Amino acid sequence: MIDKQVIGIAAGVLTATSLIPQVVKSLKEKKVEGVSPWMFVVLFAGNGLWAYYGIILKDAPIIITNAFGVIMDITMFILKMKYKDNK
Amino acid sequence: MIDKQVIGIAAGVLTATSLIPQVVKSLKEKKVEGVSPWMFVVLFAGNGLWAYYGIILKDAPIIITNAFGVIMDITMFILKMKYKDNK
Repeated sequence: MIDKQVIGIAAGVLTATSLIPQVVKSLKEKKVEGVSPWMFVVLFAGNGLWAYYGIILKDAPIIITNAFGVIMDITMFILKMKYKDNK
Repeated sequence: MIDKQVIGIAAGVLTATSLIPQVVKSLKEKKVEGVSPWMFVVLFAGNGLWAYYGIILKDAPIIITNAFGVIMDITMFILKMKYKDNK
């Protein structure tokens, strides 16, 4: 059976990098009309808390994947504000 | 100090519910032009793996929050396909 640490790291990498396709699409098309900014505010809080949780557990994979998630959330929120008037 | 179990559950609830503002916005506006479908494919894989990770650990909060996340990912992917041609 696959080691559970590997599954946890793979899951963390997938959830952390899930925003990349959205950031790339927004940068390319400069259109974010259908995108909800609140999603990134809530995700920012969730990823931030998970990173804090990882610090308490001294669990590097949880810290790194969620710190990366926080950076993605901030990036996407900035892009949403920057392109929000583009039709 | 706040119990780490509480922090973990709060973080899980936030990340699981982060898609709700996007689902609500897409349902209301019926416009998903700027939304990337690939994000929900990757999130689906990540949430699915986290749920599997929770099953291995027999950790209810991880299972429940990520099972809810999987349902949100599928919902959002369906909405993206349904409204993708709406300008």
